Amino acid sequence: MLSIVGIGPGGYDDMTVRAINAIKNADVVTGYRLYVDLVSDLIKGKEVFCTEMRGEVERCKKAAEFALAGHNVALICSGDAGVYGMAGLMLKILEDHPEVETEVIPGVSACQSGGAILGAPLSHDFSVISLSDLLTPWALIEQRLEAAAAADFVIVLYNPASHKRKDYLSRACGIILKHKSSDTICGLVKNIGRDGQMQQITTLSELKDTPVDMLTTVFIGNSQTTVINGKMVTPRGYKL
Amino acid sequence: MLSIVGIGPGGYDDMTVRAINAIKNADVVTGYRLYVDLVSDLIKGKEVFCTEMRGEVERCKKAAEFALAGHNVALICSGDAGVYGMAGLMLKILEDHPEVETEVIPGVSACQSGGAILGAPLSHDFSVISLSDLLTPWALIEQRLEAAAAADFVIVLYNPASHKRKDYLSRACGIILKHKSSDTICGLVKNIGRDGQMQQITTLSELKDTPVDMLTTVFIGNSQTTVINGKMVTPRGYKL
Repeated sequence: MLSIVGIGPGGYDDMTVRAINAIKNADVVTGYRLYVDLVSDLIKGKEVFCTEMRGEVERCKKAAEFALAGHNVALICSGDAGVYGMAGLMLKILEDHPEVETEVIPGVSACQSGGAILGAPLSHDFSVISLSDLLTPWALIEQRLEAAAAADFVIVLYNPASHKRKDYLSRACGIILKHKSSDTICGLVKNIGRDGQMQQITTLSELKDTPVDMLTTVFIGNSQTTVINGKMVTPRGYKL
Repeated sequence: MLSIVGIGPGGYDDMTVRAINAIKNADVVTGYRLYVDLVSDLIKGKEVFCTEMRGEVERCKKAAEFALAGHNVALICSGDAGVYGMAGLMLKILEDHPEVETEVIPGVSACQSGGAILGAPLSHDFSVISLSDLLTPWALIEQRLEAAAAADFVIVLYNPASHKRKDYLSRACGIILKHKSSDTICGLVKNIGRDGQMQQITTLSELKDTPVDMLTTVFIGNSQTTVINGKMVTPRGYKL
């Protein structure tokens, strides 16, 4: 069995029982080193194969090798294994090996764990967009930002910056500002569920000039999103 | 403490440790009867207040009353408490009572649990849209469908039908077909994680004529989404 396991933001408490059991039952654990370290208490005595950033293909190929050799393998992903996680790549790499039994174990993704910290930003229709243009043309990212903003979606931005992409959030906000008001309620959460967690509620115009890093998740409200007792809340439309 | 708890699709294994503990630590549990029944093993001996469908406001007001009276309350939501869940409404109802301590506990939402069953449909940018027009004007839903389709998002549809809205999925597909190819890979999952679970992978043109109910979650791929060994997979763009 090859389990592609979403562990959520990182802490034991935010893992599902299924994810915990899949890791416990595995004899081989693979993943990005930072995420494997988050579950170190669960993997004592197991064979561990880690790769660094951008080692995704190597990591999944190694997981396939172990599974083909008959091991129970847990491939660890942060957040949800299916949301920008390794599930798609892993299933692709196993395309010629349908005999390998696989399961995708979902977990709490950053849009949810971050949203819960901010309040309830995702109570209505939302779009999730990664600002990383490593694997996606920037023109397509721009098109999606513009479409989601014009249709008044709540927008969640993953990977809003990196060392080489310092101004991407500012560029994204510029596009979104063509359609959303400058006082649209926005939120950001950094290091969700980990040491150094911090959150901030702000406006779209201020967000444009806010420095962020790759461990930050950004939330841009819809036209109805508001602040209630310091929480970011998107109403569903219930009559009180 | 008032905990707004996402329990995921329903089974114990798909709950997070935090959600399980919040329910165990509560002395009062409230929720929609179907969802409270899913956690019946955890709530023996506790005070329980259930409402039926459309009882959302009553349920949250009651939860507030219990919390104001000093109880530890768990308000149960299926999926994620923040994704079309009760978190937003609950925080709104407590607007004049900032003294009530609240926490939102995220859980696995249907887009994730259903996605994991189908394979990895959400490995790239996606939009989540509810087709219910009980609380949202249909014109806005149409605008969002059109925007998400035109920008080649993967689209997840919640509440695709009800007794009174039998043709809404067909209407939504008609709008999406203006921008996405008729052979776009689509998937649907019914009764996720519960008795009677069933899944199906199909195309957009066939989806248009597929009957669904309110317990079905619908996935519409992007232009790159494909089928690998019977699984619905949206590639992220890695070079192999």
